[in-house]
This record gives sequence, C-alpha cells and structure tokens, in this order.
Amino acid sequence: MKMNDMVLISVDDHISEPPDMFKAHLSGEELKTAPTLRVAPNGTTYWEYQGLKMPSVGLNAVVGRPLEEYGMEPTSFEQLRKGCYESKARVDDMNVNGIAASLNFGSFPGFDGGRFHKVADKDLSLIHLRAYNDWHIDEWCGAHPGRFIPCALLPTWNMDATVEEIKRIARKGCTAVSINENPTVQGLPSIHNPYWEPLWKAIADHDIAICLHIGAGNPAPHASMETPIEAWITTMPMSIATGAADWLNLEALHRYPKLKIALSEGGIGWIPYFLERADFSHERHKAWTHSRFGATKPSEIFRRHFLNCFIDDAFGLKNLDALDENMVAYECDYPHSDSLWPEVPEYLYKSIRHLTDAQIDKVTHRNAMRFFNFDPFKHHRREDLTVGALRAKAKADGVDTTPVSSGGAKPLAEGEQARPITSGDLMKMFSHHSKAA
Amino acid sequence: MKMNDMVLISVDDHISEPPDMFKAHLSGEELKTAPTLRVAPNGTTYWEYQGLKMPSVGLNAVVGRPLEEYGMEPTSFEQLRKGCYESKARVDDMNVNGIAASLNFGSFPGFDGGRFHKVADKDLSLIHLRAYNDWHIDEWCGAHPGRFIPCALLPTWNMDATVEEIKRIARKGCTAVSINENPTVQGLPSIHNPYWEPLWKAIADHDIAICLHIGAGNPAPHASMETPIEAWITTMPMSIATGAADWLNLEALHRYPKLKIALSEGGIGWIPYFLERADFSHERHKAWTHSRFGATKPSEIFRRHFLNCFIDDAFGLKNLDALDENMVAYECDYPHSDSLWPEVPEYLYKSIRHLTDAQIDKVTHRNAMRFFNFDPFKHHRREDLTVGALRAKAKADGVDTTPVSSGGAKPLAEGEQARPITSGDLMKMFSHHSKAA
Repeated sequence: MKMNDMVLISVDDHISEPPDMFKAHLSGEELKTAPTLRVAPNGTTYWEYQGLKMPSVGLNAVVGRPLEEYGMEPTSFEQLRKGCYESKARVDDMNVNGIAASLNFGSFPGFDGGRFHKVADKDLSLIHLRAYNDWHIDEWCGAHPGRFIPCALLPTWNMDATVEEIKRIARKGCTAVSINENPTVQGLPSIHNPYWEPLWKAIADHDIAICLHIGAGNPAPHASMETPIEAWITTMPMSIATGAADWLNLEALHRYPKLKIALSEGGIGWIPYFLERADFSHERHKAWTHSRFGATKPSEIFRRHFLNCFIDDAFGLKNLDALDENMVAYECDYPHSDSLWPEVPEYLYKSIRHLTDAQIDKVTHRNAMRFFNFDPFKHHRREDLTVGALRAKAKADGVDTTPVSSGGAKPLAEGEQARPITSGDLMKMFSHHSKAA
Repeated sequence: MKMNDMVLISVDDHISEPPDMFKAHLSGEELKTAPTLRVAPNGTTYWEYQGLKMPSVGLNAVVGRPLEEYGMEPTSFEQLRKGCYESKARVDDMNVNGIAASLNFGSFPGFDGGRFHKVADKDLSLIHLRAYNDWHIDEWCGAHPGRFIPCALLPTWNMDATVEEIKRIARKGCTAVSINENPTVQGLPSIHNPYWEPLWKAIADHDIAICLHIGAGNPAPHASMETPIEAWITTMPMSIATGAADWLNLEALHRYPKLKIALSEGGIGWIPYFLERADFSHERHKAWTHSRFGATKPSEIFRRHFLNCFIDDAFGLKNLDALDENMVAYECDYPHSDSLWPEVPEYLYKSIRHLTDAQIDKVTHRNAMRFFNFDPFKHHRREDLTVGALRAKAKADGVDTTPVSSGGAKPLAEGEQARPITSGDLMKMFSHHSKAA
C-alpha cells in the first residue's frame, strides 16, 4: 500500500469546548446555571461550574505552535488553533493530516467527565452532563456525518441515571462512552463492586464501547519534583498498566463476552510483555488466588475485550503477531503535545509499511470501525477519505499549517535561564495558572 | 547448546537473615544493641531494632511449599526452607536448580537497607549496617567462593560515611550495592540533587554496580482494595518504569560513563517499547524541556548503563535484538513466589534455545560476570558449574525438593470460603501479622 492510499481513523483526539456550547441545548435557568466560560483579570480563561473553577481551556492543546512552545499551557482561546474548538476547522485540520475520522474526548469536564461528579448539586449536574452529550453528539459530531465517532460521558454517581443515559445516547447513534479507569479516585466503588452491574448490562445490551483514557484515574507518577520532565512524558502512556490489569481481572468480562474496553493513549509495544506476565502470574499463583479465569488464560480474555491504541509505536507494530491484529488501532492525540499533526501519514507509514494491506487497513481504520460500530463509508466514498484525497482537499481549501507562536503559561519564570524543566516546574506552572482563575 | 550445558548466574535472590548473624562481627554493647530476632506470644517471629519492629522474617519466602500456600506469609523460621537462611543449604538449593552463582538481597532491613535509615540513632545504625555488610560479604558469600556475588547496603543518609563504606566494601572485593530506586521515599533528596555527587564519584572510581530492586522505592500500586491480587502481581515488575525513566534522566550518567545500574526484577519484554517512547518523547519535546541528552539518544544512554534482569520473559528474549544483548541477565528470585525453583533450567531453556550459544552464554552468565566484575571460574572449573554438573552433585548430596506444607499467616480468615483473593485481603494479612509482632 502507498502512503496516500491509507484511510486513517484516529480513536483518540480532544476538543476544547467552545464557550457557546450549551446555547442550542438548554434554555432559561438550566442555561444560566450551565458551565460558563469566564475571563480572570489577568486574561486567563477558565470554566466555572457550581463554584468549581476549571482552568483547563487548553489542557496542553499546543498543536500548531513551534515545538519550543509545546511546554506552555494555553490560558485563553486566542492561544488555541481554531481546530481545537471549531468542528469545521477541526475537519480542515483532519484533512490536512490525512485523517478520515476521529473520536474526541472533552477537556473542561475531564476525560472521564469527572468534574460533573465533583460538584454538589448532582440533579443539576445530570441536566448539564446530558446537554454536554447532546452538544457533542448532535452538534460537534452531527455537523460532519462520517467524520466523528461520538463518545459520551456518563453520570456514574447515579446508576439509574447512567443506565437511562446509555439508552438515550444509544438511540442517538452514539457507540462509545468515556469513564474513569479507576472510579475509586472519584469516591465511587471499584469496578469489582456489584454497584457497576447495571452499567455492564446496559453497555453489553447496547453494544457500547468503554474508553479508558490515561490520566483521569490511576496517576502517572512523578518520581520527584527534581526529575526532568521527559521522564514523566516517557512513562505516562504505560501508567495505564495498573488499570489494564485491574480491568483484566474484572469478573464481568466472563459474563458479558461483548464488553469492549479501549485503553486510550496506552500504547502497544509493552502489551505482549504484559500479557505474558499476566499468564505467568496466573499460572504460578492461581492455586492460592482462586482467581476467576478458569480454563481461559488472562491473555485470551485481554485479546477478546481490549482495544490497544497507539500514536507512534514501531516496536509494537513489528510485533503485531504477539498482539491481536484485530484489536490494535491508530490514534492521533490532536491537539496535545504528543500529536504528530500535520505529519501523521509520514510517521505512521514508516512503522506500518512492512504489514500486509489487510493488516494496514485493520490498524488504520477497519478495527476502529468494527470496535465502535462506525461506518464512514456510509457517508463518503472510500476514495474520498484516503490520505491523498483528504490532503488534496485541504490544499484546495488553503489549510495553513505554518507554526504560529501563541503564548500561554510558561514552565520557567520570566527571565529565568533556560535549564532542564523538571516535574516541579510543570506542577508550579499549573498551580499558578489555576490560582489566576 | 543443550539445557544441561548452560551455566546460570542469578542476579536477584534473597536471604532471610539468620538470628545469629551479628555474633561474629560485633561484641559487647554493639552486639547487644544490634537488630535482634524476637518471638511474639503468638509465635510470630520478628526483628526488633531501636524500637522498630520488623515482622519480615519470611517476606514472601515461600519456596519449597505447595503452590496452594504461595500466598501465605511465613511468620517464623520453622516455616522457611533452610536454604532461605543457611548458606550451605542455599548452595544445595542452587545446585538442584542448576544455578552456579547468585546475588542476594536482604530481607529485614529492606532491599535498600531502608530500615537502617528509619531509626533515630544513626551513629548506631552505621555500626550495625557495617556489621550487616561484613556478615553478608565475609560470612554468607565468603563461605562459598565463586558461588555468591556480594551486594552491600549503604548508609546514604550520611554521604561521608557512604563514601567510606564504598571504599571499605570495595577493599573486601564487593562489587555491588543496593540502594533505593527513589530516595525521596526515605526523606532524602532526589537522585538529581547535588547531594549524591560524592556517591556517583565513589561508585565510578571503584567500578561498583548499583542495584535498584523493585518494591523499595516507587510503589507498585494497587488499583483498589477490591482488585483481585493477580492484577498487582502482574504489574509489579513493570512498576520499575517510573524509576527507570527517572534514572535515565540522571545528568551524572553523562559525566560518569562507567556508572552501572541494574533494574532488579524489572523484566525485559517492555523495555524496547520504553526506549522507543523515551526517544520519541525526547525528540518531540527537547525544544522546550532543555534536557541534557544532547546528540545522544536516551535509548543509547540506557543501553550503556542499565542491566535488565528477567525471571521468565519469552517475548523479551525473542526481541533481544531490540535490547542490548550485553545488558540482559537472568535472575531466579529464590525464595520468593515468582521463583521457578527447582525447575529453572527447564523454563529458561524454552525461552532462550533459539539464541546462539554466544548469546545464551551472555544472558545466562557472561553479562552478569562482566557487569559485576565477578568470575566464578577462578574458583571452579566451568564444567563443574553447568546445570548438568550441579544437578548431579545435588543428586549425590540427596537434596530433597518435595513440596512441604509450612503454614504461616493466611490471606483469608480461618473457615472463610475460598474466594478470589483481593489486594485488600493481602493488606489485611500483612497488617494483622505486623500487629502480632
């Protein structure tokens, strides 16, 4: 296969929600009490909801800047590339990057919708979470049929409402939800608790995929505040291993063979080791752990249920035979700093060109289509969604990818000598930025 | 190569220190105040030192039991196989398992000697830590030349004393030390702090290898207390990734090209992914992180300095070319529950038989010999240290490997129905056991 003939679906990108997002979906008191974008005296933009201030308008949305500014945290919409918050501009940015379709996570509520959980008035929260889903499914995704895979949030603090919301979004054609990889960090029971039984059933009944995005649940630890920040960036995707092992031991997987779990931004190259280790641990310890795997190996359960998502992962793709080639999917991570926008096709092609055409189709789009019950070819001809066709369209549309210096919060104080940035520097930057809000 | 012709050096095993360990190395008040083994009214054995009670006589030393008892924590010496605490019996157990030589970590002081740090009177602590090293080097290892690689503890709370101790153990022929992978958990400065400069210099000057054993520093997290325990067992080795990334970003590696770091019990199959990710993170982020790698890739630095240690790791060994074949070494983990004693040769041979003879020699013993400056062939003919020769000796000596039921603290309460053991069950078992001491 030639690079320009690939069809790319990304199963992990992000939206910085636009200020007017609730307008078309709420009115009166419900609109008035919805999350609102505000500007602090120093110009920092933040969302406010039920007294909770959320300075996460950018959330590392650094796409389109020179690489020197990838460590600066955007503090206002002016510092964001338009594709972060306008769906039409996003489609342009997908075109210029050769991306046919994309699944997007939110920003201000947290990837898992955790901030709707955190506030006090949960009745209100439920109303606004639903409106959030309406905006995401009907407005952001709905405006561009076949270009976005909708992914909803769930009010998991209330299991009845959760089941109702699953039914409601399923009726709208939404086939994915994003929940916390480890609900105990939200104060909810662990996934092994019977509390979650109605969710497993509803998810299985409606053939919905669960997305677990790194960073919202089990933490990606900083070794120390003096540790150079590249250490944290390196280990961040693999921090999902704790969650992966937790979910792999979920008893419900044995009762609901259709449960589907995507490890969003988890990477793939370490997975074959992880599976071998899971099988070893089971084989050596099952006599006293009384674990539930029975005659099935943990690695078999994993291959049946878990989608593995990669950004740039040559070693994993070289060892595709040690994974399940039906359960590996590409992701772009636009507009975050790991994203290779607008050069994804060039990078990706290097690491998959050794595969067969059928395998390339699987990891670039076929697996995502099957896993998320999503078919872009219902709305577009295949030949219009290839890398070559989309880039030709972007060229005709004049999509400009020239890096633009955009400012924001800095990891080093003004005038401070350039020196290796540490975990402590980044923590300080985020805390200053939060206080400004 | 045939299985029986392999020569095996294990770079990670453990000792349960015998009660009389300080007798030959201290006298008078210094002996009286040394760590002492005591027996609680309920029969639980524990070490006591400066008021600190350490119920870690066994520390998962379950070797020789039926697999059903691998989750029970030994609470007295009677429940341990003799090879855990007697060096002669240990050599027998190495012979029957085809192990030519072994590097041992301690138990009651913690793998990192952390409990010598924890107590109040540090002058006393220094005396007893030195006596501990004397016992380990002169008595345990000294009694069997060529069969043990000595590994000392360091009084890292005092950098002058640390440098002195490095010189002292180096004079005794000790070529390895075990320190905490993340000294901030001991209340010491991070490894990036100038505090450690004298240690780097002394280590490099005396060509000493640093061992970082999993479990003493950065934690291996439990997702929740309801999580089946196999999840934790699965992810435990990989929890060293946080430390590996931290040390990989250590600036001293660029100034001391001879610094050697062993990632004890860290596994190998995930390392190629980790290195690819480290290079990616560096390439994409160096413009703002101002990191110190310069023209050298993180993966090159890693391959130069880090020894990767595996117990059973077919995927890693299949991908030896993605590591450095000179920096991979076998480990047994006797007497802990991951150890494959007494069947190591059978398991290991399955995962390395595809390699060339030269590669097999490297990962089974040549790399360990070079890394630790250790030469068992000075004391024994090579043909007497092969799997076949050692097992023949064990047979002649009548070493019995029949599993023996040995009791200890149980993860489930007496009479409780067998059910999947959780992280909470294990935490409860350890806490009960600690309270008994």
